[in-house]
Amino acid sequence: MRSFAEDPACTFCGIVSGRVRSSRVYEDAQVLAFMDIHPAAPGDLLVIPKAHAEGLEDIGRSSTAHLFQVVHLLARGLRRSGLPCEGVNVFLADGEAADQTVFHLHVHVFPRTADDRFRLEVEWQERSRADLDDDAALIRSGLARSGHRPGRP
Amino acid sequence: MRSFAEDPACTFCGIVSGRVRSSRVYEDAQVLAFMDIHPAAPGDLLVIPKAHAEGLEDIGRSSTAHLFQVVHLLARGLRRSGLPCEGVNVFLADGEAADQTVFHLHVHVFPRTADDRFRLEVEWQERSRADLDDDAALIRSGLARSGHRPGRP
Repeated sequence: MRSFAEDPACTFCGIVSGRVRSSRVYEDAQVLAFMDIHPAAPGDLLVIPKAHAEGLEDIGRSSTAHLFQVVHLLARGLRRSGLPCEGVNVFLADGEAADQTVFHLHVHVFPRTADDRFRLEVEWQERSRADLDDDAALIRSGLARSGHRPGRP
Repeated sequence: MRSFAEDPACTFCGIVSGRVRSSRVYEDAQVLAFMDIHPAAPGDLLVIPKAHAEGLEDIGRSSTAHLFQVVHLLARGLRRSGLPCEGVNVFLADGEAADQTVFHLHVHVFPRTADDRFRLEVEWQERSRADLDDDAALIRSGLARSGHRPGRP
């Protein structure tokens, strides 16, 4: 097995190396998907890059592209699995303030049904067009600071 | 402007064509990002494919890869925008049962702070290893039914 940058204290690195048991669903050279042991519903999957990376600041663009191609594949697989699945959510938490609890980047892919017990509790805000335009300008300047050049993805 | 497969009844198609006003943050040939008018917090972004597609069953693998490369870029831009942002969530709802409300595929990218008002309410379940192994086998068979061949992403 090819070896990856591994954090010996990281449970997900342990799953990649086989030290920690998991129920694997998908694997390729860069990405592994396995069942979440604390699912919101049966079928709840985690998709991870094999190489240890904490969050979106720590992986490159091509790794992201491939990771989410696998997410897409698994969402389609879930709908054809026979498990209860009327819809699919994809959720990524990047950082402790965003509810990340395991600090090896992972994407949740999980089936939903009309009567399930998953709820988002959000106080949606109203924001004026002027405020939205200001927010957009700030994020565009953040893109520039991140090294993005307009016109290139 | 290049024209896209457009659903005249779709608000997001209207945003792509310019019929409906938006505060744009990012645009390239395939993807548009703009501010959510009902944000969970200032900085809440929506990222969409320009061509009308309802969900993950309706777009291809390369479109997904590019869409999430832009999601990644915007998450990095948010962290450098000056808007309150200690973490970032990425959320996609595929289907009404998964809380999709606008039926033009979109990815939410939004900033989080430790004291914000966004909460996930989930009754996490315990699931035995045997059940998880069974679930994994079902999803692998779903992948095969979706046309996936093991060993290819």
